[in-house]
Amino acid sequence: MLDVSIVGTAMYAPERVETAADLAPRIGRSERWIERRTGVLRRHISDEPMNVMAARVVREVLGDGPPPDLLVNASLTPLQLIPDSSVFILEELGLSGIASFSVHGTCLSFLLGLHTAASLVHSGAYKRVVVVSSEQGSVCRDFDQPESAALIGDGAGAAIIEPATRPGQGILGFAQQTFPDGAELTELRGCGTRHHPNDPATTDKDNLFQMQGPNVYKMALRRVPPIIGGLLEQAGLRPQDIDVVVPHQPSGPGMKAYEKLGFHPDQIVNIIDEYGNCIAASLPMALATADRAGRLRRGDLVMMLGTGAGLSIAGMILRW
Amino acid sequence: MLDVSIVGTAMYAPERVETAADLAPRIGRSERWIERRTGVLRRHISDEPMNVMAARVVREVLGDGPPPDLLVNASLTPLQLIPDSSVFILEELGLSGIASFSVHGTCLSFLLGLHTAASLVHSGAYKRVVVVSSEQGSVCRDFDQPESAALIGDGAGAAIIEPATRPGQGILGFAQQTFPDGAELTELRGCGTRHHPNDPATTDKDNLFQMQGPNVYKMALRRVPPIIGGLLEQAGLRPQDIDVVVPHQPSGPGMKAYEKLGFHPDQIVNIIDEYGNCIAASLPMALATADRAGRLRRGDLVMMLGTGAGLSIAGMILRW
Repeated sequence: MLDVSIVGTAMYAPERVETAADLAPRIGRSERWIERRTGVLRRHISDEPMNVMAARVVREVLGDGPPPDLLVNASLTPLQLIPDSSVFILEELGLSGIASFSVHGTCLSFLLGLHTAASLVHSGAYKRVVVVSSEQGSVCRDFDQPESAALIGDGAGAAIIEPATRPGQGILGFAQQTFPDGAELTELRGCGTRHHPNDPATTDKDNLFQMQGPNVYKMALRRVPPIIGGLLEQAGLRPQDIDVVVPHQPSGPGMKAYEKLGFHPDQIVNIIDEYGNCIAASLPMALATADRAGRLRRGDLVMMLGTGAGLSIAGMILRW
Repeated sequence: MLDVSIVGTAMYAPERVETAADLAPRIGRSERWIERRTGVLRRHISDEPMNVMAARVVREVLGDGPPPDLLVNASLTPLQLIPDSSVFILEELGLSGIASFSVHGTCLSFLLGLHTAASLVHSGAYKRVVVVSSEQGSVCRDFDQPESAALIGDGAGAAIIEPATRPGQGILGFAQQTFPDGAELTELRGCGTRHHPNDPATTDKDNLFQMQGPNVYKMALRRVPPIIGGLLEQAGLRPQDIDVVVPHQPSGPGMKAYEKLGFHPDQIVNIIDEYGNCIAASLPMALATADRAGRLRRGDLVMMLGTGAGLSIAGMILRW
């Protein structure tokens, strides 16, 4: 039990929208194929870099309150390799002299960053932590890969974590498992030392998202249930006890698959049709969407979960 | 107070050594210039990728013990952008089904990863966490930048964190502050969305380390003392109370500057001459060097500290 409270959430999606009709000619698929295969009707595309989007949601989530004592960047796509992207988010916010770093676990980054932040607050190291995910993944789309190109959208989401103010409030359970036999199913092989940009052998494709969607789906279908089932069991809960399920938004079929865990569609926050897969930002965007809609009430049981490249799987149960 | 114990350390430096004599013709400077300016007499250069070096030190630090329940990759330079590098370290180790993610704060990554891991152990989320930093930064050297090209070396270091076994053992204090006005002093502008490798405007230089060494030194000299001084004061300690100081190894002059904080050279673990600046791996390599030499005894007060691009500054005091 980590006795913390999420005291604020925020999300942002860029104004510029790309519909299936806009995208169809670029990927050589019909509108109907895009909508059926990916479940994404619209995606928002950012002309701003990730630190500017991040600053928008952090500003909103901080509101009139004091600055945080720690900012955790939990985004997949960095602005640049050095310095750490958290520095550029602070710079954009005009904040200086506070702690900052990044937590990275591809699409699970927000969930991992939130767990890390909660642990740091619980142990007294910090009192007010902002976790922010911001993704301009559209820059890395491969239009020769119709599925992933149609899935990805841009956006940002953030949350503030502070010590709990009510008894029983906080994180009741957390689980993560990584299975490296899925490493080749979702890749961006470049932007590191293996396929350095200056290496003549590095191809343009190496620098873009490559995804074997159906294989990821199959592996997740087999491996997610024992982990999430085990997490519920450990907490002495059944799927129907959870008030709101806030998952990563991988794809239309991926969103349907959460029902196989025993959740009813009404329990699940689903924003895939409007925003697509915004990588690490999808989960906090879904959280903020639920919060704005009044779906998160103090005392509610909330489950956040998702999968990330690896294949890595994680889930968290918290009392809101 | 985070009641944890570092129960093992390990380090690895590649066999291949590059001396000042080897490097001098490549950077257009004399051996004497390299040795005087950087304090680096030899640097080790890896032909293996970061995950292979990381697996070496993790294997050593685990020894005959059980596998960890969490592996934290705390390296600056990723193997590739997706999946997270922790996945490739697990793959190389033949480990599957455990938790893994990365903590990123350039040269401070190990210290931040260690603090995160300690907090997760303290709060009961995990019982045996490996934190590993592994850097093949040599791939990103710019030989037109004599100073940074001469500073950088490759290597890896790791530590295991478990719950404390003795009263008073653990992390007594931690502090970090990030100052974004130093963002342009140490950069690798590429490998992210700002200067994507496929963007025709991205130059080869964007993908290599760029450092304004003297300006980083000046800024650090002004900003490190209040943070480290404050950390000591908060713990009710004076510099001479610390048994062993294990710092990041930025450069020869940077190592000398730690003495300005009130530490005697005998207190400071200094390996810059043999390994150079191994980015995030320098600190755990220094820690393992001190451990191998029998300099870390149970009950000792150990201070770890350093600076990272940003400029970001952090320090930790722990009872070994």
